[in-house]
Amino acid sequence: MHVLVNAAMSADGKLSSRRREQLAVSGPDDFDRVDELRAESDAVMVGVGTVLADDPSLTVKDADRRAARVERGDSENPARVVADSRIRTPPDAKVLDGSAETYLLVSEAAPTDFVEEMEDAGAYVVAAGEDRVDVTTALAKLEGDGIDRLLVEGGGELIFSLFEAGLVDELSVFVGPKVIGGRDAPTLVDGDGFVEEFPELELTDVERVDGGVLLTWDV
Amino acid sequence: MHVLVNAAMSADGKLSSRRREQLAVSGPDDFDRVDELRAESDAVMVGVGTVLADDPSLTVKDADRRAARVERGDSENPARVVADSRIRTPPDAKVLDGSAETYLLVSEAAPTDFVEEMEDAGAYVVAAGEDRVDVTTALAKLEGDGIDRLLVEGGGELIFSLFEAGLVDELSVFVGPKVIGGRDAPTLVDGDGFVEEFPELELTDVERVDGGVLLTWDV
Repeated sequence: MHVLVNAAMSADGKLSSRRREQLAVSGPDDFDRVDELRAESDAVMVGVGTVLADDPSLTVKDADRRAARVERGDSENPARVVADSRIRTPPDAKVLDGSAETYLLVSEAAPTDFVEEMEDAGAYVVAAGEDRVDVTTALAKLEGDGIDRLLVEGGGELIFSLFEAGLVDELSVFVGPKVIGGRDAPTLVDGDGFVEEFPELELTDVERVDGGVLLTWDV
Repeated sequence: MHVLVNAAMSADGKLSSRRREQLAVSGPDDFDRVDELRAESDAVMVGVGTVLADDPSLTVKDADRRAARVERGDSENPARVVADSRIRTPPDAKVLDGSAETYLLVSEAAPTDFVEEMEDAGAYVVAAGEDRVDVTTALAKLEGDGIDRLLVEGGGELIFSLFEAGLVDELSVFVGPKVIGGRDAPTLVDGDGFVEEFPELELTDVERVDGGVLLTWDV
């Protein structure tokens, strides 16, 4: 499986302000680029924090791109994957609106009634890990379901889990022309963080987009 | 006064890990660039957190650059400025080693014995603000002392104060090929952060340096 993490951050590395409201850090050209990334992916993954903060649909916006997927025998939209260790996904979240397949990754400690509620809402529930989602096991199960290209769109907690497990192959980051600041604002990579053996990156591309810059790194 | 903020951060916007140990995010070419920036400045400023974490001397490392400063009638090294609202500067800090003039910015609440201790250690103590350093007043006092070009090297708390007060003219950031992560790790701009009216930047230069990229923004 190829795992690409893609996100937009402010010039100081924040995904949003301390209020965790959705902020437009990038612009139309970057949105279009992300739409293309989604169209090229088998699945698009976010953490439940992103579902709660932004309620994204994670679908492909451009009709031609959806048509091209169908033409080549794929589903109209890539599958959606939500990592939800603390069973917080609301049944009326847009990722459960039926416009694409949705995998909900939970731990084995997830209560049966939550699992049933999510299955009733149309999700495939995948249990992996004792009391937190074990992303290594969960992604292996997704790969078994034919998901070879996974696009991860955030947030910082999920991205850290994936880096910690050594699962990230590529990182593309739009750095936008804005300062957000805040010691409690969410950043591109949160979690506990590394204190040694920091993942090393190799810069493969630098491109000016929407008043900011798109950096592409190999991990 | 022209205020340039310069710092090196990881690909995810961190200045250090949650342990706040000094980390080499950049490499020799970026260090040399910073040495040149120091040589061109009238003063180099940091917050007391940086003094406690890294104990920097903030002097110009290259002998030719120091000689060039003397030749044009300047001091060998730029002045050093430490913002210290909570009077934590240790008297044996390297910024007090006598190799350059040192301004210590404190609030008017700073106790007389601390001020005397710092003056004995060779610092010019500048009081501005009731119980925290008022950076606007303090920088105006420095300008009155002939400091026209101020280089700010961090950390994130000081940088936020300067952005909040609208004092930053230019931001140069080296984005390094490393992931640090951590919701408690220090970032380029910390403090309370903005929740609206985010400072807008204009990207003036993009340059590959030391495996990373140097972004230069006008504020």
